[in-house]
Amino acid sequence: MTLMVVGSVAIDNIQTPSARRDDVLGGSAVHFSFGASLFGPVQMVGVVGDDWPEEHTKLLKNYGIDTAGLEIVPGGKTFRWTGKYLENMDDRETLDVQLNVLGDFQPKLPEAYRRAQYVFIGNGAPATGLEAIKQLQGADLIVADTMDLWINIARPDLAALLTKIDGLVLNDSEAKMLTDERSTISAAKKILTMGPKFVVVKKGEHGSMFVSQYEIYVVPAFPTENVVDPTGAGDSFAGGMMGYFASKGNMDAETIKTALAYGTVTASFQIEGFGADRLREISRENIDHRLEQLRASVSF
Amino acid sequence: MTLMVVGSVAIDNIQTPSARRDDVLGGSAVHFSFGASLFGPVQMVGVVGDDWPEEHTKLLKNYGIDTAGLEIVPGGKTFRWTGKYLENMDDRETLDVQLNVLGDFQPKLPEAYRRAQYVFIGNGAPATGLEAIKQLQGADLIVADTMDLWINIARPDLAALLTKIDGLVLNDSEAKMLTDERSTISAAKKILTMGPKFVVVKKGEHGSMFVSQYEIYVVPAFPTENVVDPTGAGDSFAGGMMGYFASKGNMDAETIKTALAYGTVTASFQIEGFGADRLREISRENIDHRLEQLRASVSF
Repeated sequence: MTLMVVGSVAIDNIQTPSARRDDVLGGSAVHFSFGASLFGPVQMVGVVGDDWPEEHTKLLKNYGIDTAGLEIVPGGKTFRWTGKYLENMDDRETLDVQLNVLGDFQPKLPEAYRRAQYVFIGNGAPATGLEAIKQLQGADLIVADTMDLWINIARPDLAALLTKIDGLVLNDSEAKMLTDERSTISAAKKILTMGPKFVVVKKGEHGSMFVSQYEIYVVPAFPTENVVDPTGAGDSFAGGMMGYFASKGNMDAETIKTALAYGTVTASFQIEGFGADRLREISRENIDHRLEQLRASVSF
Repeated sequence: MTLMVVGSVAIDNIQTPSARRDDVLGGSAVHFSFGASLFGPVQMVGVVGDDWPEEHTKLLKNYGIDTAGLEIVPGGKTFRWTGKYLENMDDRETLDVQLNVLGDFQPKLPEAYRRAQYVFIGNGAPATGLEAIKQLQGADLIVADTMDLWINIARPDLAALLTKIDGLVLNDSEAKMLTDERSTISAAKKILTMGPKFVVVKKGEHGSMFVSQYEIYVVPAFPTENVVDPTGAGDSFAGGMMGYFASKGNMDAETIKTALAYGTVTASFQIEGFGADRLREISRENIDHRLEQLRASVSF
């Protein structure tokens, strides 16, 4: 099945307690795409300025990522994010954000993308996701990500987006914030009343949970110690999950649980390097190997 | 295999955001014993004052809990804890503690207990655990629990205890506190250098993790929404886990993973009522039913 993602494309400056890296290729669409590319081709929709290095486009293409949907705004500047991870490598501070061309991004889907069957709306303004969805022609599965920022500043757009999607992916703290519920499961169930048919709650090192009206699945995270840079962990999780869904073309119980497991394994590699460095080094075989390790570790 | 627990026996006053209950039968040995009793007989070692209601002893006996090791101190008062759970039902404040007879508890194991094969040292002063272990004759498996209080005020005793046990059970925040490590796995691995052959890290609603030199197993928590009172969740987890170990008499990989799953399922019932109310209502069949649900939800 064809898989498409709409999201941010960024140049990041990242500080961790032990290192600093500038001008890292990033953004929700990019991290999603590298993750999903391990499972099949991906069509990427995003926007950059003319400061965007041409090598980045080449690099994406080398990984089977279709960049026909990457708009380059002449005279514009690419979205930039500068952030710092605290000692626990979990909490972070945003030191600087320059929205630049992302600020008034109106996605225009290339003709060939409009019939995408599997669609992911990566983190970004809900209005951007709504605009992209309008241009789709009969997608089988539309899943969106969101985050605290949009819950706080764009609640009406987010509410509208929720009625247009099949599934929502978000962190557990965000699920609680969106619903004013205090338990993860209650929050996920309340989100089901807002539109989506399923919710995937990301819990970082604690794994993830799939909740629909009839089923709850829980998958622990792949246990990893070597956290170099958590940036894009959630996006690569979604990339692995959606990449697997698109490769299977169904949503039966086995596929759902395995997709969550592929998501956590993809994210476990993502955080082992800056930006997408680590995902770029690995193959589907590495992913499958860790999937087997995770399976052995959780089956009883 | 015979299973014995040494720990606190308490009368608790518990407040939650929606209810308050006074004079609840509690303590680490009690909650452990109710959990373990679903898997087989348990020998309980603890101390109470002569304010201890005789009905409590009868109740424990009705659940197959051997109370020959329950010392009653004439003229003494039973340990009392008063606590309040905050809105998230996870954080709690201790409003009042009266150690009473627990303050200078010197466990004296009945002759019949000294040959116990499976032993659990429930939460309590590490010196108490050390004293109990001295009286044992060739136990197969000794596992202890600990908590932040002892890490802070009884570090040398705790260090000595760690060299006398096979396994340690503790929360992830406590594992990090004990080792000054920031990741759960790094913390667990460092604890392995302090004596225990394995560590079980309890992560509340996020499940648990078993770490030894050669293996890591992760088991998610049974997903439950109905949290009435979290008191004793960790003790009942340990009771289910040790009860299952004792019923199997081995520590192979399958048994370990299944024991963790039984632990989380036992705890999922525990938190559905005040004190041990809910565990007292259920049978091994209820436990096995949830175990099957958990198995189905996590297997992929």
